[in-house]
Amino acid sequence: EAASRLWHITVRQDLPTYSLDDVQKHNAPEQGIWITFGLGVYDVTEFVPNHPGGDKIMMAAGSAIDSFWAIYQQHNTLEVLELLEGFRIGNLQKDAVAANVEEELGSPWAQEPKRNALLKPASERPFNAETPLALLGEHFYTPNELFYVRNHLPVPVIQAEQYELELDVEAGAAAGQPTRTLTLAELKALPKHSVTAAIMCGGNRRSEMTRVKPVKGLSWGPGAVGNAKWSGARLCDVLQAMGVQPNEDLHVLFEGADLDPTSHPYGASIPLSKALDPRGDVVLAYEMNEEPLNRDHGYPIRVIVPGSVGARNVKWLTRIIVADHESDSHWQQNDYKGFSPSTDWDTVDFKKAQAIQAMPVTSAICTPLPNERVKPDAEGFITVRGYAWSGGGRRIERVDLTSDGGKSWHVAQLEQETVPDGRHYGWSLWTARLPLSAEQRKQEGLEIWAKAVDSAYNVQPEAFEHIWNLRGVLANAYHKVPVKLS
Amino acid sequence: EAASRLWHITVRQDLPTYSLDDVQKHNAPEQGIWITFGLGVYDVTEFVPNHPGGDKIMMAAGSAIDSFWAIYQQHNTLEVLELLEGFRIGNLQKDAVAANVEEELGSPWAQEPKRNALLKPASERPFNAETPLALLGEHFYTPNELFYVRNHLPVPVIQAEQYELELDVEAGAAAGQPTRTLTLAELKALPKHSVTAAIMCGGNRRSEMTRVKPVKGLSWGPGAVGNAKWSGARLCDVLQAMGVQPNEDLHVLFEGADLDPTSHPYGASIPLSKALDPRGDVVLAYEMNEEPLNRDHGYPIRVIVPGSVGARNVKWLTRIIVADHESDSHWQQNDYKGFSPSTDWDTVDFKKAQAIQAMPVTSAICTPLPNERVKPDAEGFITVRGYAWSGGGRRIERVDLTSDGGKSWHVAQLEQETVPDGRHYGWSLWTARLPLSAEQRKQEGLEIWAKAVDSAYNVQPEAFEHIWNLRGVLANAYHKVPVKLS
Repeated sequence: EAASRLWHITVRQDLPTYSLDDVQKHNAPEQGIWITFGLGVYDVTEFVPNHPGGDKIMMAAGSAIDSFWAIYQQHNTLEVLELLEGFRIGNLQKDAVAANVEEELGSPWAQEPKRNALLKPASERPFNAETPLALLGEHFYTPNELFYVRNHLPVPVIQAEQYELELDVEAGAAAGQPTRTLTLAELKALPKHSVTAAIMCGGNRRSEMTRVKPVKGLSWGPGAVGNAKWSGARLCDVLQAMGVQPNEDLHVLFEGADLDPTSHPYGASIPLSKALDPRGDVVLAYEMNEEPLNRDHGYPIRVIVPGSVGARNVKWLTRIIVADHESDSHWQQNDYKGFSPSTDWDTVDFKKAQAIQAMPVTSAICTPLPNERVKPDAEGFITVRGYAWSGGGRRIERVDLTSDGGKSWHVAQLEQETVPDGRHYGWSLWTARLPLSAEQRKQEGLEIWAKAVDSAYNVQPEAFEHIWNLRGVLANAYHKVPVKLS
Repeated sequence: EAASRLWHITVRQDLPTYSLDDVQKHNAPEQGIWITFGLGVYDVTEFVPNHPGGDKIMMAAGSAIDSFWAIYQQHNTLEVLELLEGFRIGNLQKDAVAANVEEELGSPWAQEPKRNALLKPASERPFNAETPLALLGEHFYTPNELFYVRNHLPVPVIQAEQYELELDVEAGAAAGQPTRTLTLAELKALPKHSVTAAIMCGGNRRSEMTRVKPVKGLSWGPGAVGNAKWSGARLCDVLQAMGVQPNEDLHVLFEGADLDPTSHPYGASIPLSKALDPRGDVVLAYEMNEEPLNRDHGYPIRVIVPGSVGARNVKWLTRIIVADHESDSHWQQNDYKGFSPSTDWDTVDFKKAQAIQAMPVTSAICTPLPNERVKPDAEGFITVRGYAWSGGGRRIERVDLTSDGGKSWHVAQLEQETVPDGRHYGWSLWTARLPLSAEQRKQEGLEIWAKAVDSAYNVQPEAFEHIWNLRGVLANAYHKVPVKLS
């Protein structure tokens, strides 16, 4: 494996050498699409329609992908390098290589914040890291420094004094007014609203789904979730002040200050009906658990869209647009969508699936950890703890545990806020004491299953096989944790 | 079985004889609780706390249950008769029997409406009947005369001219005002609002769950559902006119004109937040598919609570109460709730579970029917049709079909309204063409599975085993239909 990561900086003696000029001529389907990476020249004409990142690959047509991959580090896997090497047609002339490989690549990442050493990284650039499970279940409000981080791009540097939020109404009854801006001080002068909301990555628990069949995406365990009290101005107040009226054909688009290599911001959108509904509790948050947001979580302003997938909770928020269409960003259009288990990268049509908004019901066991050795207490019970959550404001109604493959189920005690159903956006922590039979106590180990039921009595699916999808999102099957017995 | 149904009208020579007077003395836990049924005298002291109908059984303490059972005909099963006979302690004196058994029992049922002969009854008294599956999938709007009927009590006789709807505000900012009434003409004079909504019985598909383990309840197939366009006055308009303000601690209680033997009406309630939300689309309906409601469906007024379980859609509506508590009716408190699979009639505590409101995602195959012989078309495909629905206004996003146990899935074509998600209350009909492999075509038969995914990407659970519950509600596992191949 180590050797294979060097393919692109190895001269292939069996292949011809091309100049940078040769490569630049191949920048369109008619001429063929060539790219370079390190020393390698690749003909990716056939691959372009299947690129998971869509059209973005064409920005590198006829040139080097090195600087793009430095930012989109999801490419830095053995599978991707192997795929690329399959398209190799030659070696790049020496003087051309110097211009590419020796380029200074580190700069977009030079100003990343310091992170808590306990966070478990799924990728370093962009920084993505989850909370260790054993810590996750210990706090109803996840400590800010342990809250999972999901960044798509480098963390921007924003000075509070310079910060401005831009507001545009492009559609609906209030369209046509001039752009407005709000400074941080102006946002803080609006009525302050707090909401307890869990934020969960669409790919949380992807690593379990991957066991069925590989998927594209960061290998998250069950720790890409956290629960916090968010405070700020209500989006409905801001929109109402601009005269925005209810209109179910409209959307609210968000843009962040985090920019991709072509200077396009991270973006996402939600339906206007969610944004305008006071019970939707959408907040332009400047506080997380009563402290100012830290840089990884969107300083100075992050939009909190309670009950919706993490990707809609845009960080470093710089612009809000009321429009007659969803965000056209990659993350709204070509990512964070669910598909049938039989849809593969040859057949997928991202236009056919709805962008994930409200998330389905899920749960996870935080302790014991997988393969941990546990000792039943004096009465023969083992204690199991975890979290459960459902999107769309649906309260968790019940969490059931079994240690015998579902022959007997035990109902957990829930710790949750007393908030009305429909706007119950926080998670529930739970504890269950599972009795072990005499027969079970003779075993070397057993498997504990957790399943949650939400207030619409939706329940988790039993297994990943029939919910598998090519992006590995929505991984909400029963959480099954094997433990060893003392 | 036929003989066992005669137990209660058979003299048990091994047991003593009691007078009506003897029985009447046993009407409280201290003296023991006796009841009579036909010729039998039963000591049910131990059973009373476990009675599925709760306290209602105490109305018969020290007397005859015959007239109650004539209405609550769910007792008329072999299991219940057998259970009762287990409590037998004696025979009733002959003159006492005459007063009970020869009583005229038919009267509450004398005025039932005529029904379409195609409806498949699950019980005759009260009348409960489902739509034949093959017809169900043929109409996006279920024809009124084929729409499933779920009555809990005899159908009341209501004259439009005499009809009055009573409105009381017992809690909240608008409490204390005098009772108001609305005639049918006054309701029709309010702005008319239409909503397409599927109504589904909480026990739809119970017969499949029963195969895991018996449950209490009518043995519904997948036809206890229908989809219609309902028109009437919006409840939010009526409540707003009375000055009712948003308050998430309040509920709206509904009472019907259908009365139980103690003259208590059928009742249910919903949260005030659902009732007041214009997007909740709660309608005081006088039309069903552009015709006046028929008697079985609530003539002259039925409240339609889109997205919620059928039981909240109270028929023959006579009273609306804004209150600080849920309805205290049997059907709100001690029925239509979900429990863990390990909860049985000895351990159940109905107070611990939430009344079903929004229903979970489900689907069913309407054609082919179970064990039907199907012939692949010239290209080797078989065509499968059915319905899918989710509660809470969640649109159906996708329906997946498999004929090989989930090794390959095929996405169905959906027929659905273009209504925004969140208020997508109608069902979706779907059609899929499933390709059969050469190997499959050699088989005598195969099993088709359907699973639906809703807009919150909630998915049906695979099987009934782990969602089994003692009342047999929320039976939303994959629909699995075996077919024979020609």
